[in-house]
Amino acid sequence: MNRYYFDYAATTPLIPEVKEAMKYAIDEIYGNPSSIHQHGRTAKNEVEAARKKVASLLNASLGEVFFTAGATESNNTALIKSVVDLGVTRIISSPTEHHCILHTLNYLKSKHDIEISYLPVNNKGDIDLDELFRQLENSDKKTLVALMHANNEIGTIHPIESIGHLCKSQNALFLCDAAQTFGKIPIDLQALNIDFLAASGHKIYAPKGVGILYINEDVTISPLLHGGAQERNMRSGTENTIGIIGFGTAAEKASQDMQERHERILQIRHRIIDEFVNAHDDVKLNGHDSDQSLPNILNINLPKNNKTDLLVFNLDIAGISASAGSACASGVEQASHVLQALDPNDLNNSLRVSFSHFTEDEAVDYLIKTLNGLI
Amino acid sequence: MNRYYFDYAATTPLIPEVKEAMKYAIDEIYGNPSSIHQHGRTAKNEVEAARKKVASLLNASLGEVFFTAGATESNNTALIKSVVDLGVTRIISSPTEHHCILHTLNYLKSKHDIEISYLPVNNKGDIDLDELFRQLENSDKKTLVALMHANNEIGTIHPIESIGHLCKSQNALFLCDAAQTFGKIPIDLQALNIDFLAASGHKIYAPKGVGILYINEDVTISPLLHGGAQERNMRSGTENTIGIIGFGTAAEKASQDMQERHERILQIRHRIIDEFVNAHDDVKLNGHDSDQSLPNILNINLPKNNKTDLLVFNLDIAGISASAGSACASGVEQASHVLQALDPNDLNNSLRVSFSHFTEDEAVDYLIKTLNGLI
Repeated sequence: MNRYYFDYAATTPLIPEVKEAMKYAIDEIYGNPSSIHQHGRTAKNEVEAARKKVASLLNASLGEVFFTAGATESNNTALIKSVVDLGVTRIISSPTEHHCILHTLNYLKSKHDIEISYLPVNNKGDIDLDELFRQLENSDKKTLVALMHANNEIGTIHPIESIGHLCKSQNALFLCDAAQTFGKIPIDLQALNIDFLAASGHKIYAPKGVGILYINEDVTISPLLHGGAQERNMRSGTENTIGIIGFGTAAEKASQDMQERHERILQIRHRIIDEFVNAHDDVKLNGHDSDQSLPNILNINLPKNNKTDLLVFNLDIAGISASAGSACASGVEQASHVLQALDPNDLNNSLRVSFSHFTEDEAVDYLIKTLNGLI
Repeated sequence: MNRYYFDYAATTPLIPEVKEAMKYAIDEIYGNPSSIHQHGRTAKNEVEAARKKVASLLNASLGEVFFTAGATESNNTALIKSVVDLGVTRIISSPTEHHCILHTLNYLKSKHDIEISYLPVNNKGDIDLDELFRQLENSDKKTLVALMHANNEIGTIHPIESIGHLCKSQNALFLCDAAQTFGKIPIDLQALNIDFLAASGHKIYAPKGVGILYINEDVTISPLLHGGAQERNMRSGTENTIGIIGFGTAAEKASQDMQERHERILQIRHRIIDEFVNAHDDVKLNGHDSDQSLPNILNINLPKNNKTDLLVFNLDIAGISASAGSACASGVEQASHVLQALDPNDLNNSLRVSFSHFTEDEAVDYLIKTLNGLI
């Protein structure tokens, strides 16, 4: 039986260019980038070349990009260090953020005297900028705003340019979790008022276990991990050289192919909406049916019946890998905190299908046919 | 010109079995281990198979082994969480620990009301067990002892069995940084009183960027990184699947080949000692010339002259990659904190040569010839 992968928002396979770069690194690059001899310098050069590619994709300075083990570590670092080092006593976030934000906020609340405020979202997952402005204006507390670029379950894009302006005008810091958008839609950090940005390689065809934390050059924090002063003393621990090399290659390719990938993804999106979502009165999208959504994520609301219960399990048996929401949730199906924030009264079943420019027409045909069979 | 690598204590190349496992993973394993569909389960199975190999090498339970980005993260986690979660208010360590211990202790001291005590070491880098006992006995404070298994610069092995007994008898916790010994000399965690043990893959022919934290099943801490509940909610962040698979393979091979590797390494060690160190009256070892030292590390004390100044640099030009001490120290040569602890008045130059069972006779010949040319 063929298997079809519709869970690109959870993680992606490696593209050939990344495979090749990593296999080269596996065979040839083994020095410790901190070593001053030739083996070390060779590895260091590769790490710095990768940093250049990642920084270029974001229009950031080389000195603002720090490699980490992934967006979770990056978001944890920005949140924890904002409180511990920068005197932040209030964090404004939203109930639809990823667990690596929400759970870290719970942790910080339990250990520090800080105020945490969750902006309400409408039934598409949008925040209200006026409400953000009111909250920012209404307090003298040093504030961090933690809002993701696009939601990982429903794709809803937050207006990060406006959020950045509001933060800047009110002297608040802005952490943007860009795990889903990095390398998929343009992000120009010279034009945005962003203090911290987190991203992972494995959402854009690089390996799992490598990511970045962007820290605006005007912001100074201490590292979360202390030790050998790697990453210009911002993140200790011997560098994941092979992963970083793969990440750099993926970032370069994402930059080159962004428009072409985007167009193919839109084709797939429109087909699934036209041939499945719009074909049934009782099927609808969770989130936006427009460019306010990241195009490679469709979160579909289905009528409750015995075929749509245990939906991910049933699709898995049918040869389709899809998800009910975030993969990062302990491997069990549970109510999505994102969908609950959109509409706590909605008892329907929901499915996230996420795809790629790689997704072939045959896979889309099979997905649509299978989903139509459920209704 | 041939290049010869004598910096295996800094990091190692990958062995063929690890390369093969990683290339297989690059091509075949791309699901997110947290996803419940088949792509996810396949990745999860690989991660758990690797965990089994690592746990087996340490005679630990599967539930006690948590994958991290490396020993630095593992040591940071154990130190920080001992203070924050376990109520530790005193840490006993030594001045010869790795920077990922010492710098984290400095950080903890700056943020928390804790006492930190550094055990004195003798001129071979040994601690005094009686002094440790006295310090443990002399306080009711909840105490963590942080002592490495073998020193990364001089190879001196701490008596972790005795240290563990002392800690247990005095109700103290014991964190052992085993970055240099893991996979090289036997560690039986069922027979040792160790609460936390840290190790990295890249010292035993696995890739950089993956390691473990062993947490004894009787100890409960909260994660350092919060988020998606990976690693049984102990370390969030999508798993570095390819790195973990390589790590598992390296651990299995280390277990199988430990004795054979050890014997070859001893041959090399004895040759360098006989044909260089003992051939000159003014050359000596820093550390032990016995089985109280990890055999693959030789730290050599050389008379100060214009050839032994800038020694690592000069050897690099001669085609030898070696080191003055830890690689994890910002890429510049600086006075070693380890050697300063052994003898603050020693103004000689020192060199760490570290090798492997892979190191060929030709490389040893060349090293000995080159070093003899310096004296």
